[in-house]
Amino acid sequence: MEALGRHILVELYNCDNEKINDVAYIESSMLAATRASGATIISHNFHKFSPHGVSGVVVIAESHVSIHSWPEYNYAAIDIFTCGDTIDPMIIRDTLKKDFQAETISSREIKRGMIKPKAGKKLLHKPQQQILEK
Amino acid sequence: MEALGRHILVELYNCDNEKINDVAYIESSMLAATRASGATIISHNFHKFSPHGVSGVVVIAESHVSIHSWPEYNYAAIDIFTCGDTIDPMIIRDTLKKDFQAETISSREIKRGMIKPKAGKKLLHKPQQQILEK
Repeated sequence: MEALGRHILVELYNCDNEKINDVAYIESSMLAATRASGATIISHNFHKFSPHGVSGVVVIAESHVSIHSWPEYNYAAIDIFTCGDTIDPMIIRDTLKKDFQAETISSREIKRGMIKPKAGKKLLHKPQQQILEK
Repeated sequence: MEALGRHILVELYNCDNEKINDVAYIESSMLAATRASGATIISHNFHKFSPHGVSGVVVIAESHVSIHSWPEYNYAAIDIFTCGDTIDPMIIRDTLKKDFQAETISSREIKRGMIKPKAGKKLLHKPQQQILEK
């Protein structure tokens, strides 16, 4: 059995609450971190809530990167779901931890899609594909 | 300690491969399931890949719902990340399992954002907030 995807669930605690409430800063940081990992960005959406909190998702050819922040608790939840082995999700995790000045991090990795490839075949991942429609 | 969010990671195996390759069907199914759960939809993006596969994310006021499908393996990965207790993520999971005709399902729940509320205070979730910017 092989996994189609790697999913890194990251809890960032004791973040700088102004940084994780700044939608422009978060968007810029998430896009730069995602590009640095080698991922191909397809679309992105970021939203600011009132009185505080930001949600954002970057859809990548290799799956997605998301954030939900609770500045009132100095906390942000990050998900980095990737497939294929051409990109390094840990670059995204470590960049965001630094950008949001998180003092405490909890990170776990979950394998997604356990598939048994046919004899002599390799598991295929989306990075080898083309984007057909947006 | 209390959790800010519930994250349901769902693996749908042995799905109907035409259904999980049909971006319009997936979008319609995901939006209907999300509405049925009681969630508030903020934005949504769905993409079809060539030769096959769909990625999509629905950002909700209560976090997000996402899908990545590999029709060639009859497999779809679903994430349902919610906060607050006004919506039922299991409605989304069960609706998508049925719509994609998954024969096998694996589902696990992970608590996100373990916070200690201040004495006498309740943990606040995003559903009580307003959307400020899109």
